[in-house]
Amino acid sequence: MRWFVILGAVLGGALIMTIGLLVGHFAIPKDSGPDPSRDDLSKDVDVSFIEQVMAEIDNKEIEKSLRELTKKPHMAATPGDEDLVQLILNRWKNASTGLDNATVDRYDVFLSIPDPANPNNVTVVTGNGMLNFTSRLTEKNYTEDQVDPDVVKPYAAYAPPGTPKGKLVYANQGRMIDYEELVKQQVNLTGTIAITRYGGEGRAGKAINGAKFGVIGVIVYTDPKDINDGKALENETYPYSWYLPPSGVERGSYNGYFGDPLTPYYPAKDFTYRIKESEIKGIPPIPTQPIGFEDAKTLICELDGPVAPSAWQGSLGCAYRLGPGFRKEGRFPNDSDVQVNVHNQRIINSSANVMGMIRGSTEPDRYVIYGNHRDSWVHGAIDPSSGTAVMLEITRILGKMLKENRWRPRRSIIFGSWGAEEFGLIGSTEFTEEYYSKLRDRTVAYINVDISVFANATLRAQGTPSVQNVIFTAAKQVKVPTDLSTTVYDNWIRYFNRTSSLHGLVPSLGTLGAGSDYAAFIHYLGITSMDLAYTYDRSKTSARIYPAYHTAYDTFDYAARFIDPGFTSHQTVARTAGNILLRLADSLIIPLDLVDYGETLEHFYNSAETELGPILAQQNISLGPLKTAIDRFNSAAKALNQQIDQLKKEVNPSPLHVRMLNDQLMLLERAFLDPRAFPDKYYYSHVIWASKSSGIATFPGLADAYAKAISNSSLGWDNVSKHLTIAVQAIGNAAATLEIVI
Amino acid sequence: MRWFVILGAVLGGALIMTIGLLVGHFAIPKDSGPDPSRDDLSKDVDVSFIEQVMAEIDNKEIEKSLRELTKKPHMAATPGDEDLVQLILNRWKNASTGLDNATVDRYDVFLSIPDPANPNNVTVVTGNGMLNFTSRLTEKNYTEDQVDPDVVKPYAAYAPPGTPKGKLVYANQGRMIDYEELVKQQVNLTGTIAITRYGGEGRAGKAINGAKFGVIGVIVYTDPKDINDGKALENETYPYSWYLPPSGVERGSYNGYFGDPLTPYYPAKDFTYRIKESEIKGIPPIPTQPIGFEDAKTLICELDGPVAPSAWQGSLGCAYRLGPGFRKEGRFPNDSDVQVNVHNQRIINSSANVMGMIRGSTEPDRYVIYGNHRDSWVHGAIDPSSGTAVMLEITRILGKMLKENRWRPRRSIIFGSWGAEEFGLIGSTEFTEEYYSKLRDRTVAYINVDISVFANATLRAQGTPSVQNVIFTAAKQVKVPTDLSTTVYDNWIRYFNRTSSLHGLVPSLGTLGAGSDYAAFIHYLGITSMDLAYTYDRSKTSARIYPAYHTAYDTFDYAARFIDPGFTSHQTVARTAGNILLRLADSLIIPLDLVDYGETLEHFYNSAETELGPILAQQNISLGPLKTAIDRFNSAAKALNQQIDQLKKEVNPSPLHVRMLNDQLMLLERAFLDPRAFPDKYYYSHVIWASKSSGIATFPGLADAYAKAISNSSLGWDNVSKHLTIAVQAIGNAAATLEIVI
Repeated sequence: MRWFVILGAVLGGALIMTIGLLVGHFAIPKDSGPDPSRDDLSKDVDVSFIEQVMAEIDNKEIEKSLRELTKKPHMAATPGDEDLVQLILNRWKNASTGLDNATVDRYDVFLSIPDPANPNNVTVVTGNGMLNFTSRLTEKNYTEDQVDPDVVKPYAAYAPPGTPKGKLVYANQGRMIDYEELVKQQVNLTGTIAITRYGGEGRAGKAINGAKFGVIGVIVYTDPKDINDGKALENETYPYSWYLPPSGVERGSYNGYFGDPLTPYYPAKDFTYRIKESEIKGIPPIPTQPIGFEDAKTLICELDGPVAPSAWQGSLGCAYRLGPGFRKEGRFPNDSDVQVNVHNQRIINSSANVMGMIRGSTEPDRYVIYGNHRDSWVHGAIDPSSGTAVMLEITRILGKMLKENRWRPRRSIIFGSWGAEEFGLIGSTEFTEEYYSKLRDRTVAYINVDISVFANATLRAQGTPSVQNVIFTAAKQVKVPTDLSTTVYDNWIRYFNRTSSLHGLVPSLGTLGAGSDYAAFIHYLGITSMDLAYTYDRSKTSARIYPAYHTAYDTFDYAARFIDPGFTSHQTVARTAGNILLRLADSLIIPLDLVDYGETLEHFYNSAETELGPILAQQNISLGPLKTAIDRFNSAAKALNQQIDQLKKEVNPSPLHVRMLNDQLMLLERAFLDPRAFPDKYYYSHVIWASKSSGIATFPGLADAYAKAISNSSLGWDNVSKHLTIAVQAIGNAAATLEIVI
Repeated sequence: MRWFVILGAVLGGALIMTIGLLVGHFAIPKDSGPDPSRDDLSKDVDVSFIEQVMAEIDNKEIEKSLRELTKKPHMAATPGDEDLVQLILNRWKNASTGLDNATVDRYDVFLSIPDPANPNNVTVVTGNGMLNFTSRLTEKNYTEDQVDPDVVKPYAAYAPPGTPKGKLVYANQGRMIDYEELVKQQVNLTGTIAITRYGGEGRAGKAINGAKFGVIGVIVYTDPKDINDGKALENETYPYSWYLPPSGVERGSYNGYFGDPLTPYYPAKDFTYRIKESEIKGIPPIPTQPIGFEDAKTLICELDGPVAPSAWQGSLGCAYRLGPGFRKEGRFPNDSDVQVNVHNQRIINSSANVMGMIRGSTEPDRYVIYGNHRDSWVHGAIDPSSGTAVMLEITRILGKMLKENRWRPRRSIIFGSWGAEEFGLIGSTEFTEEYYSKLRDRTVAYINVDISVFANATLRAQGTPSVQNVIFTAAKQVKVPTDLSTTVYDNWIRYFNRTSSLHGLVPSLGTLGAGSDYAAFIHYLGITSMDLAYTYDRSKTSARIYPAYHTAYDTFDYAARFIDPGFTSHQTVARTAGNILLRLADSLIIPLDLVDYGETLEHFYNSAETELGPILAQQNISLGPLKTAIDRFNSAAKALNQQIDQLKKEVNPSPLHVRMLNDQLMLLERAFLDPRAFPDKYYYSHVIWASKSSGIATFPGLADAYAKAISNSSLGWDNVSKHLTIAVQAIGNAAATLEIVI
């Protein structure tokens, strides 16, 4: 726990204290000034200070940082990654712009890398053993800054090694329903190699599903229809546009769960018990390899068999057929097999989180956490260095304010530069495991900025409902880069909006899945979380994600020319996220609104009533207790808001009075946790936001239990009742947290 | 959640406020006086006030209460129980001695009762079907106050109905090793009825174990050797002494788990999902019935077969033989079978918790909880009314102080009169389930006083190690009833003591199992807990427990004549428990000492090293990380104590500073919880105090995993490593809670 312990030692400035002395010392060292006076205790956030911070956030500095961060590939636990550990540590320890302290937390985590001596590929082998085709081993180089000996060759992390060979089939997105469709079309899948396109299903799922149907190897590619708005020609793609070149390959973790795969629930330390590799859940059971669409075209356009359904057709410039095997008189003899050659190695490597701390003046035992991962697949200019550059700019300004004694937050602020996110949110998950209890008891909120700029059209925010309020407030105080008369809020509402029953037309906040480092915070710890970025104008592109995602083309040049020329969108995200951070850290009353949570619960209830209600009634299962619990929650939330309004009118509110209300606000999210609700799903404990298979926007346990019961009614209705109880109990706990304390 | 919501409404005294108004109001109503001033915020416990409270605690009032409480049998959810619900509610709502508020929480719980129309018994049936013996249906009446139509006939709650018949065997205490011994002695257990004596094994275990060996019915009795110091004659027992008369039968719950059996983890409300009866774990699979030793003698002294081992012999006045079946030429034809006739019914009844509240002046959102169950098996003068009378005396004095405006605690105090404890700690467990989140976040400690006086020799206390300090302090301030120059502490240390590595010779604090209502607080919620009582001089009796335990003889007369004539031990427990309660509620810094926790961890470590270390080393399992974690805990605990000492010297400490330290003290116990550590054991989540089968005084998961691995080495060593990780992680979490906050 070095970073918590050591911190105090640097606070005294030149004064050198030993750890021994320090541990015997209170968290607020004497030399940091007198005890907070009653005035300090009731000091509120300083809006003009936020203005100053925002004014100092500099797009040129962000650009400079991004250039440095992207000099080398920095895949997790490689030398390039370790260079950035030092870079960030140095920034956060800088005498004039650093934080109170910065340290490195290390975990020995289970990773998967390709064998440098024996590259993965996909080949076509004729009946008599002739090699007829080999997929590209690397992406084609177009720019200087893309070239590096450390560029990792495309692979599917955690896919098992092996060289299965069989007839090729086209399985669309590799969803269960896709394989079922193939069976319906009488395609015999046993012993086949399935080629699938990215999207529609998690990476690992494509192989896990396929194996259930007898598929022995999986190829994954990115269809130009899904990523390039159909553009497939070399002169239409990068470096001529932001679109993905034909040889580009999306790398990625093929691990459906998150956290170090060998140490679920416990930090991957030297003392930690590790499960057997065979016990790892959620990874492909069969060799799997991603390829570029140039190579995919060679394979798919030669397929035999029935023409694929129209929804399965892509932009490779031919009619996609299902297979199995190649057509007669095509490029390949039709007795040819496709072979997937995977030589991935599993290793345990040391991965670092860099932690930076600013001690709170008044409530040092309350944490606002801001995080971003550091590791990329290749140079990672967008993913994640766009976020890292933004975080470094925020810490540079706040560090400067701190060092110049112009500011110290009311609550402590912790910055996390997470390691090994790309392999499955590993660094952030290990962090939540190692510091479980103190984070659970003390964390006000977690702000995640991973990719800060996908595109430069608008803000996009995801989060639990209570953060809507503070995000809106901040977004109204920040101007858009292109038009200084328009706020981020006003711009946002044009792109994403909804009609709220409480507020009318507002920007719509997305929900948190498990796509970035907020996952363990919200699902495992029940900490109020949000994720922020600038993103696309969806009227201009239907790209699944920015086209260079996880490829060798995600470079500084790509970012500077096609994603955010001038880096003003980066600057805007830094201003918005910094603004939110300061409001959470400095406000007398934590600016979370729990009435907004109630609106979401109502919405979930209404969906359940509409979509599940009629059949539940037939089963004598009443949603009444759920409605009662939500009504109680809403009453309590409204009453709490009234208390807050009252308190804000007081000149010198009692500090314990304030603390009590703030604890209710902070701990609300924790009340929704039930560690026994989803015993089969690692980490998912949040009854409102756990993952679900059902498409119905309601309580996940209820929705999934309902879907199961519908498909096998003899078994499942008891399970529906059980998940209804779980939801009622969680909402009851949440209401109790908000109600008058005794 | 009525009791939390309604409370405020009565605080204004005569002022009547609607709930609607109240909910919109802050927890400290305006009319309760001005905001706490800085002086109030740093006010410490008033020792002279404690003296006043102790002086007012009146043995005559306790006697009066006990007489009222024991007028009628008050088994859970019977009319007698409901009468006491009203009695307690009225006391706590009394205008001059009541609390701020009192309410009733109800749960629909699964109980087991004998069929009034078809009484249980044990019979002997000859080969030709003749009935040769019938056990007594009820206990013999000796005193007036024992006579009541509502006395429940002896039975084994939750034993299934049935009338199995077979040859009788004597199985000692019904432990696994007892049945194994019978097998070793070549006694064929298949189809037999086993007679076992109380002790050595949980009630349910006797039948669960027996069934594994083919036993089809179980009889349980109390041997005079175990309960009566060998006395078995009618003129040696009650009403001539405190010993159990020959017809006395110990009733009891034969449910090995606790909480409502149909709703594990969720409160037994109307909306709650209930598991199937067949899914209930931990109850006898075969009919089981308790009988008196008079009847047991008739059966055991007629047994045939080899003489039982000497450790199995009791005080029935004959040589105990193993069976199977009766001897030739005895009272019964030797072809006779024994039949166990059980007609228990399973019902769902409404059980009440009565909750009484005193709102804290400065930290209303911090709770000190004091509880005692209300339900008995029969008249329950000792179990539990001795505790209820003590609780009512404490609330009478505190209520008076409150109504006279002489005192209001710093923190809120909650009193719980739990229902259905005897069936398996049901009321208290449902309470922890219903209010899980707020209790978890806000409870400072739980004080349990169930049976307050077993005997009048000395205080006996059990608890987690951090409560030692406050119990000692209180015990030094209270005098023993028999000698006003001796403190409870000085007397206690004569009876139970140990040499502490930190404090030298001190009274020894026992550990908490799951024997009373503290179980869900400590094991499920991780709340610092203790259990207090006055108890035996072990040099004068070896009785397993006071002899009238769970029988019809546990009456006011029995209590007044043999347990505590003059009720001065009751008074002493009330003074001690009240003293502790006030210190926990009023002290500026919560008086828990975490360095004492470290001593226990060290002790656990030393046991592990001595008892498990050598063989673990052979398996390459190192206890080093455990030692490191404990060292870290100890450093942090010592440093925290130094911080507290420092703070106590400050004239006007910052209220948030105080609160921060108090939160560390309060939440320490929670850090030891790991809800995933013992997935097979309901509620047990506390890594230090979970139940265990091993007799080694160390970490329970580690000890049990080790024992399993020893007995089946091919499987278990990974599980030992896993439980070592669980312990290291829990202690690490605890250390982090105590360390400097950032």
